[in-house]
Amino acid sequence: MPVSLAAAEKTALLATAEALAEVARATTLAYFRPAGGIGAENKISAGFDPVTVADRATEAAMRALLAERRPEDGIWGEEQGVVRGRSGLTWVLDPIDGTRGYMSGTPTWGVLIALSEEGETTPGAPLLGVIDQPYIGERFVGGFGVARVTGPLGEMGLSTRPARALSEAVLFSTFPEVGTAEEGAAFARLAGQVKLTRYGMDCYAYALIAAGQIDLVVEAGLQPYDVAAPIAVIAAAGGVVTDWTGGPAHAGGRVLAAANAEIHAAALAVLNA
Amino acid sequence: MPVSLAAAEKTALLATAEALAEVARATTLAYFRPAGGIGAENKISAGFDPVTVADRATEAAMRALLAERRPEDGIWGEEQGVVRGRSGLTWVLDPIDGTRGYMSGTPTWGVLIALSEEGETTPGAPLLGVIDQPYIGERFVGGFGVARVTGPLGEMGLSTRPARALSEAVLFSTFPEVGTAEEGAAFARLAGQVKLTRYGMDCYAYALIAAGQIDLVVEAGLQPYDVAAPIAVIAAAGGVVTDWTGGPAHAGGRVLAAANAEIHAAALAVLNA
Repeated sequence: MPVSLAAAEKTALLATAEALAEVARATTLAYFRPAGGIGAENKISAGFDPVTVADRATEAAMRALLAERRPEDGIWGEEQGVVRGRSGLTWVLDPIDGTRGYMSGTPTWGVLIALSEEGETTPGAPLLGVIDQPYIGERFVGGFGVARVTGPLGEMGLSTRPARALSEAVLFSTFPEVGTAEEGAAFARLAGQVKLTRYGMDCYAYALIAAGQIDLVVEAGLQPYDVAAPIAVIAAAGGVVTDWTGGPAHAGGRVLAAANAEIHAAALAVLNA
Repeated sequence: MPVSLAAAEKTALLATAEALAEVARATTLAYFRPAGGIGAENKISAGFDPVTVADRATEAAMRALLAERRPEDGIWGEEQGVVRGRSGLTWVLDPIDGTRGYMSGTPTWGVLIALSEEGETTPGAPLLGVIDQPYIGERFVGGFGVARVTGPLGEMGLSTRPARALSEAVLFSTFPEVGTAEEGAAFARLAGQVKLTRYGMDCYAYALIAAGQIDLVVEAGLQPYDVAAPIAVIAAAGGVVTDWTGGPAHAGGRVLAAANAEIHAAALAVLNA
């Protein structure tokens, strides 16, 4: 159900997104890089999914701010689940995307904040997204006519890079073991055709597409809160994010993010070859 | 040939190292993240070794500063080769370590600056090292009694993390394709025994050992300028860096960097199993 928003409300929503990023930045940094590193508990005992105190504290801080400023909106958070809203809008929150990076002290994890249309089993289409890297002090914002990064070099507009051959493209994924065996094989086919494949950037890789520095990000097994903000930021910068069939990606799962429609089509064909 | 240095000269050398990092920071950032990304030429036509204008300009700027401040010292640089000195000391410079990361816009490449004893076919033992990440504005310095990081959170001492079981350790390498088939197999053995293996951090991974956040970095095929600064910074923070036989690593090749002697010994045994 598309929501019609007045210009003043868009401005207010952008301000709320920035305020959420500010509280998340302060909270995540308060727990980042303790002496001797982070000892994280395991959320899923069968696998390795570290969740830190920071993750929970950050989502709680963002929820408290939303309860005050946007009580009619819904919330889909990684840590504390779903609150249905009454405005037709929902905030999709991943307090620390890249917890493995966070617990290792890297500067490539991030806070993901999106404003999406309300949905049924997953959030709907993202309208606005923020990718924030607190340690660097860098924030990528996209939506409602805004596409900008603020960080160490000041404020700049975001614009994806122009089309180029797949053989000249730079591809990122979080780790080399991408999804299932079938998904891994599709990823390997694509990796075999690009100029350079790199790993380990967590959500920062999506920001690099929006900033015009790389061409493709491919991942599988994602949750809605992993993709909502990247979809909005990349779309605002001129890029394309879909699932591996070319359909909407905001429900999570398999994601293909691309700098432009041409390289998106080329990568999609290889993934499905 | 060990060099005996007075306290005042050590202070002057630390100041020179910082000054080198400053000029390198300005020069690398001047070329970082242009609109649409970096188009790099290939240094080795058979492989993929992008070298940017920035790489050369940065080394030239550092050499100019050394010609002025330390004309008696030698220089081993990645881009512009070896100048023999007369002081028994040589500066080992990698203007942009992680050129693939640099050309992708990541914040994980760095400027590596070391002061080493003069050597014959390679530089000798490192005495002082700097790992600088210009975009973050973060600098790790180790040697002459100093072990500190200055960055977004201010200035802090560097101290590696205490010993833990290999099964609890965090291991980094630049990419999953580590060296030759034999080297890759040894790396895979080790990766199979640790808690978490991550890729893509370039020289930043060594800084994370010094900062007490991770346990191990393993790489192969390195040059002396890739390892001299990490060796000095990690040693100053309480860690251990050797080659895969347990001998000195400053000639490059296969490198095992560890947070402490215990986990170094455990990892060394697995690499050589």
